[in-house]
Amino acid sequence: MTQPAALAHKMIYAFEQGDGKDKALLGGKGAGLAEMTRLGIPVPPGFTITTEVCMEYNRIGKKFPDGLLDGIRESMGEIERKMNKKFGDPKNPLLVSVRSGAKISMPGMMDTVLNLGLNDETVKGLAELTGDERFAHDAFRRFIQMFGDVVLGIPKRTFEHLLKDIKKAAGVKNDNELSAAQLKDVVAKYRALVEKETGKAFPMDVYDQLNRAVAAVFDSWNNPRAIVYRNKENIPHDMGTAVNVQSMVFGNMGDDCGTGVAFTRDCSTGKNELVGDFLLNAQGEDVVAGIRTPYHIDEMKRLMPETYKQFTDIADRLEKHYRHTQDVEFTIEKGRLFMLQTRTAKRTAMAAVKIAVDQVHEGLISKEEAVARIQASQLDQLLHPYFNQVEMEAAIKSDRYLAKGIPASPGAASGEIVFEANDAVEKVEQGHKVILVRPETTPDDAHGMVVVEGILTSTGGPTSHAALVARGWGIPCIVGCEALEIDLDRKQVKVNGRVLKEGELISLDGTSGQVVSGTVTLIKPEKLSDEAAKLLSWADGFRKLGIYANADNPRDAQRARAFGAHGIGLCRTEHMFMERDRLPIVQRMILVAPEAERLKRALLRAEDALEEAKEGEKAHAEAALNKLRADLATPWAEYEETLGKLLPIQREDFRGILKAMEGHWVIIRLLDPPLHEFLPSHDELLQDVTSLHVAKRSGDDLFHKVLAEVREKRENPQATLDDMEHLLARVRALREMNPMLGLRVCRLGIVYPQVYRMQVRAIMEAACSLVKEGVDARPEIMIPGVGLEEEMAFMRSLVDDVAQEVIKETGVQVKYKVGTMVELPRACVAAGDLAKTAEFFSFGTNDLTQTTLGYSRDDAAGTFIPVYIEKKILARDPFAVLDTEGVGQLMKMAVERGRATRVDMEIGICGEHGGEPISVAFCHTLNLNYVSCSPYRVPIARLAAAKAALRDKDPSVQID
Amino acid sequence: MTQPAALAHKMIYAFEQGDGKDKALLGGKGAGLAEMTRLGIPVPPGFTITTEVCMEYNRIGKKFPDGLLDGIRESMGEIERKMNKKFGDPKNPLLVSVRSGAKISMPGMMDTVLNLGLNDETVKGLAELTGDERFAHDAFRRFIQMFGDVVLGIPKRTFEHLLKDIKKAAGVKNDNELSAAQLKDVVAKYRALVEKETGKAFPMDVYDQLNRAVAAVFDSWNNPRAIVYRNKENIPHDMGTAVNVQSMVFGNMGDDCGTGVAFTRDCSTGKNELVGDFLLNAQGEDVVAGIRTPYHIDEMKRLMPETYKQFTDIADRLEKHYRHTQDVEFTIEKGRLFMLQTRTAKRTAMAAVKIAVDQVHEGLISKEEAVARIQASQLDQLLHPYFNQVEMEAAIKSDRYLAKGIPASPGAASGEIVFEANDAVEKVEQGHKVILVRPETTPDDAHGMVVVEGILTSTGGPTSHAALVARGWGIPCIVGCEALEIDLDRKQVKVNGRVLKEGELISLDGTSGQVVSGTVTLIKPEKLSDEAAKLLSWADGFRKLGIYANADNPRDAQRARAFGAHGIGLCRTEHMFMERDRLPIVQRMILVAPEAERLKRALLRAEDALEEAKEGEKAHAEAALNKLRADLATPWAEYEETLGKLLPIQREDFRGILKAMEGHWVIIRLLDPPLHEFLPSHDELLQDVTSLHVAKRSGDDLFHKVLAEVREKRENPQATLDDMEHLLARVRALREMNPMLGLRVCRLGIVYPQVYRMQVRAIMEAACSLVKEGVDARPEIMIPGVGLEEEMAFMRSLVDDVAQEVIKETGVQVKYKVGTMVELPRACVAAGDLAKTAEFFSFGTNDLTQTTLGYSRDDAAGTFIPVYIEKKILARDPFAVLDTEGVGQLMKMAVERGRATRVDMEIGICGEHGGEPISVAFCHTLNLNYVSCSPYRVPIARLAAAKAALRDKDPSVQID
Repeated sequence: MTQPAALAHKMIYAFEQGDGKDKALLGGKGAGLAEMTRLGIPVPPGFTITTEVCMEYNRIGKKFPDGLLDGIRESMGEIERKMNKKFGDPKNPLLVSVRSGAKISMPGMMDTVLNLGLNDETVKGLAELTGDERFAHDAFRRFIQMFGDVVLGIPKRTFEHLLKDIKKAAGVKNDNELSAAQLKDVVAKYRALVEKETGKAFPMDVYDQLNRAVAAVFDSWNNPRAIVYRNKENIPHDMGTAVNVQSMVFGNMGDDCGTGVAFTRDCSTGKNELVGDFLLNAQGEDVVAGIRTPYHIDEMKRLMPETYKQFTDIADRLEKHYRHTQDVEFTIEKGRLFMLQTRTAKRTAMAAVKIAVDQVHEGLISKEEAVARIQASQLDQLLHPYFNQVEMEAAIKSDRYLAKGIPASPGAASGEIVFEANDAVEKVEQGHKVILVRPETTPDDAHGMVVVEGILTSTGGPTSHAALVARGWGIPCIVGCEALEIDLDRKQVKVNGRVLKEGELISLDGTSGQVVSGTVTLIKPEKLSDEAAKLLSWADGFRKLGIYANADNPRDAQRARAFGAHGIGLCRTEHMFMERDRLPIVQRMILVAPEAERLKRALLRAEDALEEAKEGEKAHAEAALNKLRADLATPWAEYEETLGKLLPIQREDFRGILKAMEGHWVIIRLLDPPLHEFLPSHDELLQDVTSLHVAKRSGDDLFHKVLAEVREKRENPQATLDDMEHLLARVRALREMNPMLGLRVCRLGIVYPQVYRMQVRAIMEAACSLVKEGVDARPEIMIPGVGLEEEMAFMRSLVDDVAQEVIKETGVQVKYKVGTMVELPRACVAAGDLAKTAEFFSFGTNDLTQTTLGYSRDDAAGTFIPVYIEKKILARDPFAVLDTEGVGQLMKMAVERGRATRVDMEIGICGEHGGEPISVAFCHTLNLNYVSCSPYRVPIARLAAAKAALRDKDPSVQID
Repeated sequence: MTQPAALAHKMIYAFEQGDGKDKALLGGKGAGLAEMTRLGIPVPPGFTITTEVCMEYNRIGKKFPDGLLDGIRESMGEIERKMNKKFGDPKNPLLVSVRSGAKISMPGMMDTVLNLGLNDETVKGLAELTGDERFAHDAFRRFIQMFGDVVLGIPKRTFEHLLKDIKKAAGVKNDNELSAAQLKDVVAKYRALVEKETGKAFPMDVYDQLNRAVAAVFDSWNNPRAIVYRNKENIPHDMGTAVNVQSMVFGNMGDDCGTGVAFTRDCSTGKNELVGDFLLNAQGEDVVAGIRTPYHIDEMKRLMPETYKQFTDIADRLEKHYRHTQDVEFTIEKGRLFMLQTRTAKRTAMAAVKIAVDQVHEGLISKEEAVARIQASQLDQLLHPYFNQVEMEAAIKSDRYLAKGIPASPGAASGEIVFEANDAVEKVEQGHKVILVRPETTPDDAHGMVVVEGILTSTGGPTSHAALVARGWGIPCIVGCEALEIDLDRKQVKVNGRVLKEGELISLDGTSGQVVSGTVTLIKPEKLSDEAAKLLSWADGFRKLGIYANADNPRDAQRARAFGAHGIGLCRTEHMFMERDRLPIVQRMILVAPEAERLKRALLRAEDALEEAKEGEKAHAEAALNKLRADLATPWAEYEETLGKLLPIQREDFRGILKAMEGHWVIIRLLDPPLHEFLPSHDELLQDVTSLHVAKRSGDDLFHKVLAEVREKRENPQATLDDMEHLLARVRALREMNPMLGLRVCRLGIVYPQVYRMQVRAIMEAACSLVKEGVDARPEIMIPGVGLEEEMAFMRSLVDDVAQEVIKETGVQVKYKVGTMVELPRACVAAGDLAKTAEFFSFGTNDLTQTTLGYSRDDAAGTFIPVYIEKKILARDPFAVLDTEGVGQLMKMAVERGRATRVDMEIGICGEHGGEPISVAFCHTLNLNYVSCSPYRVPIARLAAAKAALRDKDPSVQID
């Protein structure tokens, strides 16, 4: 056979020749067949035409490369010799199957043609050979139908309609009730159909059949469905598919025949036992088609014990050989077992972990391999309740389907709909399970959110209040579910043409974003299984990255430790502010702070002015100063009073968390969000004030009615229109066009230093009192949103100032560190300067992604990011998986510059990416010290960090 | 004299020894005196104690370094020899002045002690020598008062009260009405006062006087007022001040005496003629103090023609020597002229330009020097607005007329009256335009003066503080407007029979000196003076940067060309959308676009799904596709209709601007802002809807009333509550939390490609039709907000696609370029990849500053940036002056990476910074191709670009 120069390899490999590891050349199926053949496992003989040939065929204009035809004939000759049959021989015909098989399995390509080699004459030979005329005609019928469909392009349904008519005429219901004669008639009618549809007779030349089937496989590589699929899955278009030609074996030649699929271990639970389906007297396609209900594989043991023994031996060998759970297909022809396929089995997370750990214990694989082969993101499943998948999928396809939103906090939940936090609390107290459904949530809803099973909002993105709170508390949550039309007044929601009222049941899957009505069976993970704990303990031995958790309270801190975190990478102080009992104090503080700090600054300016004043102006300057002192007295007193009330509350918060993390570092971030987030909603205030004004025009009656409503809503029986207007004015004054880029982060601490001082004092008082009690408290104080060297220096001196005050007051020496969150491009550029006063960096990649890309996560998630992904502008949501080529490059710059100034700089990441495997692996390559993520993602981070370290030695390790 | 080892130089330099260029060592005043002495110009002999001595004095604990005392005595001996007088000699006493003089002139330090050397005995000698006992006692009185104030720390007012009492007792009003005997009594009482206040007698030893005065100068370097000032102005604290000791000359010894200040050219207009103030028989302080109204310098010519001739010769020589307009002080003692100071004069922009151009023509300086010495930002003044003359003349003739003062700094301004600098700062921060009205100004008012629109004083002349500062900063100013009776306590001014209070509006014309109440329309000048045009034509010869302008319409484009721009760097298309007749179409388009594009995407997905569908699913997929087609028909038709209406409008816009810029490149940016910017205000809609709902509860009457109001306000007589609710829902759907980071820039073009296609078509149709008419139209199409390689590639292909369509349709070949605005950190990082498809870059530094620093310009300016500047976290507003260390570093990265991919990449800047001198100079160092700014800033950019190029050769060139 001649070999086209363009090709690097032979065009055809007999199964015993092929390299079972070369999936790129032979395709997945061909490689498996080659490997089994070489292992001496019974495989019907055959050969594989390589993927290279497919690409060459397409390159040269859908022509067989020179020598291919001859090659096929030679290879067929080999099969003939092995089978002692002859292709097209009327007496002793060889039949073959033709199957495609790319490196990656892919729908849309030509699948399978069975029984190829049948024609008017060989069908007779087959009948004689098998002594079963009915079988032979049935085989011919099947062949014409498959060939007609996939090679000649005649829709399968055309054949099926015809068959239906014949069955109807024959008065039978099922195919297998048709007699040999009737089947012969089917064949004739099928052939007439082919002739009518294609204008040509059905090909009777067997090599013509074979060559056209091979060409059809090559063609199918570029059919639209395959191209669309590859585009969608980002599979390259230049891989090509191989063609496998294999001699037929029949599982449907009697009760000593059969066919089946099996897994070498239970891929749902991981239990070490063979599971699978088996059908007696059937062809493989019957198992897949689901026409007959198959037996459990154990039935085979009863029915054909010896073959079963042989099969289990082979399965065992294959698993040991591949060192992976195998998914195998087999056929038994007249008591003789043939293996048709083997490949690595898909497993649930639970199964994957158990199998890997068991295999280590069995000595089959190393600990490194066990760790390397678990998909990190899959671990998520181990920790959140999840729906019974079959049930959920059925619900989605049924009229129970409601909508799909943005998955914001993983896990699944069913419950009764409630629309108000107060109602949620009430219902839960009565023993109901509820799902809170709202347009959005605010801090006022927190008391209700903490008790519900799940949260569903129609607006907002993954950083919305609902999403953040839900993730922090491990509550399943879907946000931005725009299909919902929520009517809070009527307490109902319209969606997908239905109206659901309060109390009706819904189910939501926070991992997929799907919402259905009614309930779905929940499967609860038994925290970390022993196997998972074992696997992660091995992972801990491999990883270089430390694993911290983001936790805002002692409960979360304890949970984080239980999941294996050994530090807190981000303790957000604002959630502490949001709690119901504190919010009123915080709100009072916020309303007085701007005036108090403004006057304070004016006072300092006036003091300077007095210093600068010339002789004649001194009196005037002094008067101005005194007036300012008088003006400042009242607001400053109120400011100090509110801060004074918050101090002990915050101190207790910090005591709790520092104690829970005894002996570990706790990074506490000073106040970060814009202050108006703590205030009542502007729009609601505007509505109330407008309503009251209009009501006033109508007269006392309506005014008092509306006022009563407003008072009730605001839970403030004394509220007046004046109060409301005043509050609206204050809220409006603090409102910002782009709060994400406004007065927040360390800017708060520079404009309102008293607030930061209070927080630092609370942290240090907590730490000092704990150390006094013998608790090893280790606070790190993190300044958010620093971009300028001067900001960091200002903050460092503010913190040191207060810390030294407290240390002096308490007489207790406490080690503490001061560092910054690196979350602005400016901080990455200036990292070398920031490191002069910052002792640690923590990448806030949520914000860094927002500013680097210029995307607001809240707005982008629901607007353009889905379109970007659809149009392939973005491969994935950069808020979910770190944009390593953009954001990541700035991080790299920050690490290099930061460590150039401070060699032992501690650097971590505390954005959401800290629990996402690909991002964690990137942090490993950046040589960060740790990643920090929400407690539930700690196991994922541990595993991903280990896999990243393993990949350094073995580049084939896939992170996710 | 011994020389302390710590000092690098001699401690004392006689004027004839000093290096007149070494201002750092001798201070500004000392250097000028040294230079004049060396030129042989008559200067009263004296010496300078260096700034180094001051620093050493303070370093060693306020002690004279070893050898200083001896050095002073030696140097005094030199003066004695030259003057043929003796310090402390009762018969022939030498008197000296002691003055401070730092490198940079600075308020707050000890200023001047005159007549030092007088005591009980020398005063008699002086009386005899001058034959004027009254003069001698007056001199002594002045000396005690000055010495008491600045050396002994006795408040000046204490002396003044005493003097007042004496005058009262004597029944006289003015000092000069006191007799010799009465003055002698004053001296006695002053001395008693000193003894009472200090517990010690007034020092009678002349060296004791001198040494204490020198020490007082040194001490004053660190007095609080000086420190506050240096902090404020960022002047280093380690420069120190020199001390100048100079023999006294007297301009108040009779009518052959006098004193004055003068400028060698008119520093207001630039005219080449001597201007200044002159007082007969007076001491220098009398001119400055404004007690007597001085003569014009011409009067001196009449009164003492010979001395005048001598003076003008000297002035001429000084100007030629320094090659700069000089500001000189002189005294004539009994017909003998002495020069006391010379320094470079402050000029208005107009004067500076005219003088520089004249000096080039006179051969005094080179063109490079002329260009280098004009402050770029000062050019702004040349384009200062002036009043509508008709309107102003009418105001002057009406009862709006208030007064006429001395025009001191050209330009016109209207604003609210404020009386205090601090009030000015506050009001301006609140967004008001204000005019500062004061009896006079002092350096303490500087922070207020810099922010106001105009300055008006009731006292002082063209050399007063107000006049000097206003001219320097290009602020319109009128001084010496004596008709004003200003009452600072009541914050009001009486003038022309009216009382104007703080906050009332006035208008002043700094060119004519006229003041009227209310506002007058301001007109912006459309062209440059001939001198400015000449200077800028020289600048054009030096600069490497191209100068483009930002212009959105033909009018601006023409103006930009007139000011010297040779291209449009930014034509914003959204302003075209905002015009009144178009907005309704745009709004309709925006309301239908999301639905239309959403359905269109769904349709494409459905087409894919049909391709992918398996046999059995095809029918279902087809049905879904057909339903979508039906759903899409109506919104798509409306979408196309609105776009179809916008197309010809936009085409005409582009025709206009491309034609105006014939032969030059015009960079047109596709739609940039979030779409909701074009929609009605959400809050107003919410108010309307809420109002209508509440009114409905009250009954028909109120409902119809409110509805009528709403209809009128919205100019929509048909509006219903339903309409309003519908509109509100749409507006709410498009609302974003952070619009700056939302669905805008090229994201619009990816989500709504039809809109961008319409714009590209409009541009290309405009260009093709112009080219057909023989006009050289050169469009560059700029894609805003690109951050990803894929975005740029998508857009490039969209643009090329439409452009080729139009080129084919019209049969006209038009050259066009496609590029991107670099305004995201992600774009800087990815610049190398963007350059694959982008043919040009333009830095959008407004947005790049926002995202790099994480500051929203809208929010930051009013909240934290002023506090940051006050607290020295930021040196200046990064939206005004480019943050070269942060944003600039990302720009540098973008330039390097962009040009690494595309060597000849055209790169410019089109943010506001493109017209700010320091930023322009930075762009020069980055090797950008051009800067683009608003038309009025084009002259500034031309000059700054030239200066940046000149600085490459001469690092001493100051950009601004």
